[in-house]
Amino acid sequence: MLSPKLLLVLAALLAGNVVNALWPLPRSITTGPTGLVLSPDFKIEVKGPYPSDLQPAVARTLSYIRNDKHERLVVGRGSVDTTAIKSAKQLRSLVVTSKGSETIATEARAPLGTRDEAYVLNIPSDGSPATLSANSTLGLFRGLTTFSQVWYTHDSSIYTVEAPISISDSPAFPYRGFMLDTARNYFSVDVIKRQLDAMSWVKQNTFHWHIVDSQSFPLVVPGYEAISSKGAYSSEEIYTPSQIADIVRYANERGIDVIAEIDTPGHTSAISKSFPEHIACPEASPWTTYANEPPAGQLRLASSDTIKFTTGLLVNAAKLFPGNYFSTGGDEINAKCYADDPKTQEALAASGKTFEQALDVFTQAEHRALKDTGKTAVVWQEMVLSHQVTLANDTVIMVWISSADAAAVVQKGFRIVHAPSDYFYLDCGGGGWVGDFPTGNSWCDPFKTWQKAYSFNPYTNISESQRHLVLGGQQLLWTEQSSPNNIDPIVWPRAAASAEVFWSGPGGNGQAALARLHDHAYRITQRGIRAIALQPKWCALRPGKCDLKA
Amino acid sequence: MLSPKLLLVLAALLAGNVVNALWPLPRSITTGPTGLVLSPDFKIEVKGPYPSDLQPAVARTLSYIRNDKHERLVVGRGSVDTTAIKSAKQLRSLVVTSKGSETIATEARAPLGTRDEAYVLNIPSDGSPATLSANSTLGLFRGLTTFSQVWYTHDSSIYTVEAPISISDSPAFPYRGFMLDTARNYFSVDVIKRQLDAMSWVKQNTFHWHIVDSQSFPLVVPGYEAISSKGAYSSEEIYTPSQIADIVRYANERGIDVIAEIDTPGHTSAISKSFPEHIACPEASPWTTYANEPPAGQLRLASSDTIKFTTGLLVNAAKLFPGNYFSTGGDEINAKCYADDPKTQEALAASGKTFEQALDVFTQAEHRALKDTGKTAVVWQEMVLSHQVTLANDTVIMVWISSADAAAVVQKGFRIVHAPSDYFYLDCGGGGWVGDFPTGNSWCDPFKTWQKAYSFNPYTNISESQRHLVLGGQQLLWTEQSSPNNIDPIVWPRAAASAEVFWSGPGGNGQAALARLHDHAYRITQRGIRAIALQPKWCALRPGKCDLKA
Repeated sequence: MLSPKLLLVLAALLAGNVVNALWPLPRSITTGPTGLVLSPDFKIEVKGPYPSDLQPAVARTLSYIRNDKHERLVVGRGSVDTTAIKSAKQLRSLVVTSKGSETIATEARAPLGTRDEAYVLNIPSDGSPATLSANSTLGLFRGLTTFSQVWYTHDSSIYTVEAPISISDSPAFPYRGFMLDTARNYFSVDVIKRQLDAMSWVKQNTFHWHIVDSQSFPLVVPGYEAISSKGAYSSEEIYTPSQIADIVRYANERGIDVIAEIDTPGHTSAISKSFPEHIACPEASPWTTYANEPPAGQLRLASSDTIKFTTGLLVNAAKLFPGNYFSTGGDEINAKCYADDPKTQEALAASGKTFEQALDVFTQAEHRALKDTGKTAVVWQEMVLSHQVTLANDTVIMVWISSADAAAVVQKGFRIVHAPSDYFYLDCGGGGWVGDFPTGNSWCDPFKTWQKAYSFNPYTNISESQRHLVLGGQQLLWTEQSSPNNIDPIVWPRAAASAEVFWSGPGGNGQAALARLHDHAYRITQRGIRAIALQPKWCALRPGKCDLKA
Repeated sequence: MLSPKLLLVLAALLAGNVVNALWPLPRSITTGPTGLVLSPDFKIEVKGPYPSDLQPAVARTLSYIRNDKHERLVVGRGSVDTTAIKSAKQLRSLVVTSKGSETIATEARAPLGTRDEAYVLNIPSDGSPATLSANSTLGLFRGLTTFSQVWYTHDSSIYTVEAPISISDSPAFPYRGFMLDTARNYFSVDVIKRQLDAMSWVKQNTFHWHIVDSQSFPLVVPGYEAISSKGAYSSEEIYTPSQIADIVRYANERGIDVIAEIDTPGHTSAISKSFPEHIACPEASPWTTYANEPPAGQLRLASSDTIKFTTGLLVNAAKLFPGNYFSTGGDEINAKCYADDPKTQEALAASGKTFEQALDVFTQAEHRALKDTGKTAVVWQEMVLSHQVTLANDTVIMVWISSADAAAVVQKGFRIVHAPSDYFYLDCGGGGWVGDFPTGNSWCDPFKTWQKAYSFNPYTNISESQRHLVLGGQQLLWTEQSSPNNIDPIVWPRAAASAEVFWSGPGGNGQAALARLHDHAYRITQRGIRAIALQPKWCALRPGKCDLKA
């Protein structure tokens, strides 16, 4: 019979193979070889200020730990850890030292670059209390998120085999996001909340909400209710001001800021149902001439009435969102739509302006109106690279067409968010969706694997002195071929890839990360996210064995 | 104010735009312009024999009709039909005339080519009873399936605006299937049953169950329990004989035969955990040398002990499945695995046989054993096109590598099932899944859209005189990157495409079919299938408007 001491050594050796279950990987972590079991009366104690939304965050953490029932992904699963569990000390508490009195929600909405998300987490192996501290409530929330991922379950034991664990952590980039399009197809409040939960588990901090588009306008904007009552898919497929408030509160309490987008002047066909006077080329045919997607329709940007209408709409919409940012879009403006629109041509002629000059006036008016409500403007890259628009220095630019375009935007001195279709578009690879096009592939083929996203380098062609302009990045789901029916598997766990790139920093080893990402995918499945399988389970249980060169 | 008569005319004109909701399209159908509403006391009466599983099928039909609550996909949805509904007669009953006394289940398992799935359905517009008749119980079941798709719901009305409806229907091909791999990742009984329901709604009649593979062996075979107890992913991720019986009964009662597959001699690594003596190159490294996927491992086909073991396993497995067919696989045999296996080389040397001769002996022994249990063998195309194996004339050949290979198999006189990767593989386009391969695409890129599958011509390069050898076809899901979390959206409604090709016959107009497929996808979503969105809802509500040339 093996001596207890030898069994401990064996357990330690086994622990050497352990897949540390944290995603994203902390910036600094040390782990040990020792088993540690949560006591049945384990509790989380908060010392110091206890902001109102920290309390439910603590309750959720306990709930995850108790309900994940996630077995370690090794051959034999949790039974492999039986010996380590038997000899393990019990952890009776996590002591959280709170210093700030701000809520998570308030801190989550602070300007980019000013949020403090750092935390220090220590889990001793001897049964003495674990400790979590941070200078901010938001940092404590990040630490709780990490703490909830440490534990596996086997039989009735909730345990780790990696104690002691010592973590000092903070994000590499201030912006770590996910973008969802709720206009091509509609997503209910509950579905969005589920994504926000999944985002918070990978410490993403920005929900970029492409809320309306040419196909539908689900956002109910006070004073402009006719747009959604005529432009939403139905009276149920809308977001009312109280639902918006609910979603934003839910996001903020999970450390996530919400950047809403009303894309202008293109992507606005839906407005033609209620305010036809403001839309050029509404549903014009053939749509391929007038828009990148059906239906065509763009705001009559050269009309002063339309500028007034648009700024009023933006201001009232912006007031629904308490964050500091609001996107006016600005992508894929179709010149032919305006060229063939007599009203726009008349307005241009009357003012003596070129189209580009009119676009500049229009965009400046939008951004001035937003600035007056305290918002910083966000736009897509065309506003910098394709047009002659005057933008404030603090404008945030989303780079989407190609990762190769980032350097050019940065060289103009703007802050960027990486959202490149060639790495981060989650919808690519699903085939052509337009009708009567049986041989059509998706325009951004191939499918962007998590491995591809994970290999992204945010600093390609960006000099040391310009690196401060890189705010971070996000994966994106355009929903021509997505709905609540497939959102979970098309997004998760893939969107966790960029979350780690921008939290832990670039250059991570994708080969080594796969085992952790499997672990994360299996864990979030336990939490109700229908995450897609990355590999056969045989591979998930055997890290490295399904590598190309194994 | 418009006169009631004019309103009726308008309603009729609107009805002209109606998306007929049937999928697959009946072989012969006429519809009218008149509204017809189901009476609150609507019932289905069966005259003649009432086989035991027809009764629950009738109950399910009523349940679907009452619970679908599916609104017609037009701008304005069901409200567009208000006038037609108001003036509509009430339908109080469907009279089903039953002639046969066999159950659906028994008829569903009859040999291919002998099943009678024809039915005649009439739904008058004047409120007199609708009628359904068929020469078989299976035909009645198909007719009930059609009947359940006729109805839309608006407010509390369940109605059609296309009465009278007259349908005479029967399938163009005897084999219309779907293949699921439950070895790369496991699918619970409930998940499989949900797929069987969805299959039955598009009148598919064969579930090709790739039940085991190298990664896992979830099938519990009496007398060979060690294989699954050591080769399944866990003691929960198995199919016991009683679960198999449950699944088969569930399928049969829905008009679906089950063809199980134990893939041999390749794809058998999982057996090495329990019977290592029968497996060559188990988990050999590098796997790329010894198999198309990790882990490597093939039955020692030249060993008489292994032949005995294999035939015993097949026979006992086959007894779990009451249908007439059983697949021994035979794809992707790796020569290097055998070349490097001393035991195989010794056996070949001792018998004086070449590898191909040994494979012939092995396969003939398998098929003879199956024949003795009353089963007709099914194999993948390599058994005909890549090896020198003697196959019985009635062997069914699955053509998978390329649609271009079908003609060569038919020319050898074998019956084929179209299962080509270039049209029907549902897993393609998801990117490379092996680890450490960030730039990897899926081997069978691009994604196969429903439109691509729908454009399939089963008779390409097949002469008139050989057409009787084309049994039909199926779409397939290999599950390296699939699990219960995404099975619904990756399969549905795409797999309905081949269901229509092989029921209604090839040459359908994909452009015209899109509206119906949207309708079907929205309807099955109501029935609990998480079908993927084919397009933005804007397009779904406006047939043709999102066509490439609109």
